[in-house]
Order: sequence, then C-alpha cells, then structure tokens
Amino acid sequence: MGRTKYETIFRNLKMKIEADEYEYQSILPSERELIQEYDCSRNTVRRALAQLAELGYVQAINGIGVRVIYKEADKASFVIGGIESFEETARRNMLNSTTEVVLFTEVIADAHIARRTGFAEGTELYYIQRVRKLDGKPCILDINMFDKEKVPGLTEAIAQKSIYDYIENELGMEIAMSKRRMTVERVSPADEKYLSLGDYNCLAVVTGQTYNGMGLMFEYTQSRHVPEYFCFMDTATRKKA
Amino acid sequence: MGRTKYETIFRNLKMKIEADEYEYQSILPSERELIQEYDCSRNTVRRALAQLAELGYVQAINGIGVRVIYKEADKASFVIGGIESFEETARRNMLNSTTEVVLFTEVIADAHIARRTGFAEGTELYYIQRVRKLDGKPCILDINMFDKEKVPGLTEAIAQKSIYDYIENELGMEIAMSKRRMTVERVSPADEKYLSLGDYNCLAVVTGQTYNGMGLMFEYTQSRHVPEYFCFMDTATRKKA
Repeated sequence: MGRTKYETIFRNLKMKIEADEYEYQSILPSERELIQEYDCSRNTVRRALAQLAELGYVQAINGIGVRVIYKEADKASFVIGGIESFEETARRNMLNSTTEVVLFTEVIADAHIARRTGFAEGTELYYIQRVRKLDGKPCILDINMFDKEKVPGLTEAIAQKSIYDYIENELGMEIAMSKRRMTVERVSPADEKYLSLGDYNCLAVVTGQTYNGMGLMFEYTQSRHVPEYFCFMDTATRKKA
Repeated sequence: MGRTKYETIFRNLKMKIEADEYEYQSILPSERELIQEYDCSRNTVRRALAQLAELGYVQAINGIGVRVIYKEADKASFVIGGIESFEETARRNMLNSTTEVVLFTEVIADAHIARRTGFAEGTELYYIQRVRKLDGKPCILDINMFDKEKVPGLTEAIAQKSIYDYIENELGMEIAMSKRRMTVERVSPADEKYLSLGDYNCLAVVTGQTYNGMGLMFEYTQSRHVPEYFCFMDTATRKKA
C-alpha cells in the first residue's frame, strides 16, 4: 500500500507553503476548493489541515479560513522535532552524520540511578555513550540507558547505526511516546573530552524517558548538545488561566 | 456556570495521580468504573483521559487500559508549559514573582528587526524590556515587541503587571498560539547588567512569535533565562520515519 490520500495532500500543501506558493499570512484555498483540487472527502482535507496546524504551518480562523503562519526557519541549526533517532533528525536537516560509540557496557540500576532515571532499582540496563558528529564536528554526546529485558540483544554494532531502527524493525516493539526536559547545564568532564565546545561553559541538555506501546518505560537518555547546533522548536496553544 | 463535568473529572484524576493514589506505571480504573464513579458519560471520561494523555500523565494501551506514566518533576526548576504569562507560570510553580520594567519605548521595524522578528518592515512596535524576579532573584530578561496597531494603548503600568491580562480582558483579543524556539546563547551585555548569572557564560533563550485568533502575529518575544531556573518540558509522540 502506498501513502494514504491524506498524507499526499498533507505533504503537497506543506511543500507549497514551504516554497512560498502559499505565502506567509495569506489564506489557503477554501475547504471546498481543496476538496475539488484533490478529489477527496471533506474529512481527508480536514485531517491534512489539522496536521499542518499541529506543526505550526497554518491556523484555522472561524468564519474566515485557514491562514498560513509558516516562515522558513533558520536552516543552520539542528532542529529537534518529535521523537526521532539522531539519524532521522540529521537526514531531515540535510547534514552528514556519523556516530562513534565511546562506551558500551551494562549496569544494574542502584538507588541513585533509579532516582535519576525512573527505572526501578535492580533493573538491568545497557549503558551507552555515543558521540554524534554533524559534518565531521562532534556536537552531541548521547548517554543512553535501555532496559535489557525490554530491549534485549543490543550490541555495539547496533548502537553504531540506529537503536530505534533495531527496536522497531528487529524487535517489533512500538515506540510510543517520550517525555522530555530541556535544561542548560555546566560542561562535564565527558563533554570536554568528546565535544568541540569552544569557550562555552555550559550546554543544552535534553533528558528523555521513552515509553513503549504498553506504556512501559524502556529508555532513559540524556543528549548533551553543543549550543551552536541546538535548536528546539515547539508550537503551543493558549489555555486561559 | 461552574466548571464543566469533564474539567472536574480531569482535575480529580490529575490530583490523585500527583498524590500517588494512582501509582506510576499502574493501570487506572476502567472506563466503565470511572463512568460509575463520576456518574457521567463515556465521552466525558474519554475527554478527561485524553487531556491527561496530552500532558504526559497517562498513556492509553489498546486492550489493556490506561497506564499512569506521571512522575513528580523536579520542583526546584521553573517549568515552562503552554503559552502563559510570567505571572501565571510563577503561580503554577509556587514562586513569589516580581517584575521590573527597565525599558519601555516605541520603535519602527527596520529591515533588520523585520528579518529577525517576522514583523513587516515599517510596523510600529512597542519595545519593552522587563526583568523577572523569582523569590527576589533576577532570573529572566524578557524582551517584548508588540504590534501597536493590534495591541494599542500599552503602558509601563500594564507592562509592570500582565500584558496578557490586558490583551485578553481589556482589549478582548484572543491569544491563540505561539511558535517557540529554544536555543542556548552567549551572555549579552544586557544579560550581564540585569541578571544574576554567576559564572555562566551562556543562557537559555526562548524566542516566541505569538498569533491572535485571526492568525495574525502580534508579539515577538525573547525570554533570556538564567540556566539554573530554566526547565522546559514536553511530551512527544513517535511518528515513524
């Protein structure tokens, strides 16, 4: 089966907005016109528009239509979006990426690890450190812990490529959602050892806990980003106090 | 009219989860049980559960139920959520907040400002700088620009209190959505002048463009946060590549 109709419409509208064919702050063709243009149902058009709204490309305005609110983002930064593997993000940002596994070992969660990560005390974990390079420059230090029982059989070779690919396509496990915190932290000895920090004395840290389709946490990750390659984007809607 | 039924259920479940009455990684009572307990419709229960899922409190698992994935966050940090005024965020984080307006002026967007902010060249803007203190410590420098035509009549006294309150309750304008970028930037002379940075040489910067109910941008803001008071939380769902 190819792409669904709705995806085709979504991608086509997204492309036209990115190409400025539908300009910033202009109103899109009406639902009726889009239904005709794409020869599809009202529901399909609405689903495509809803997804564009979620990404911050458009905003629906009662009684007026759907307005374009997309502006080209600064392409120089490494923009972080949903839950993606580093490989996927690099590809989306059109950067050449390489990964070096600097540590691959196993640990058992003690009280300290348990408190920090959310894994139960006594959980057997893979503990991995990887340096991510973009266009040859070491700009992210990823520290991952995976529950061995839920993600069995990890190897250094897999960590070298994509662990998410292994989880989804070899283990057949669903990666459902991730809770993330972004903070700015002081540079650690490991950061200094592996990253090109210049004279920055702190960096951007994204800490994530990832849950599988059963709602069980299988991963705790800290990604430590050199500031100049870090940009996180987000769209928020207002909830009145 | 009081709170809607759905809000009551949402708040009640949220409170029970936060109080550990429903424990991390446990399964909530079934829909049927919740319907009985709250004496409401299936739709009402589902809406409350959907909102809890959106906040990262629970995750629905096909054929099993709804699992609690909430863990108490580190209360020491200033957690940023949706689009909120500083006052609202401070209240939610239970911190005592004060605001000092250090600059209140007007500018016309030149080519440089237009490129940086997304306002059209020639737009008349209020340009405001405010220092935000939490428990007496200056930890955020807010740089706001508001479109004078869309947000008329701003004064220093309003900026001292809450501009969002003025927009919503005096002007009656809807604040609909905000696009935000988070980056880590080098400390500027203004940061050094107004914030307690200790020996940090960079800080967390949240840049936001905010749109009204008509899909038109009325605000550009940069919030420059001292690292130790900055924490941004986010819940992402996996979209397969």
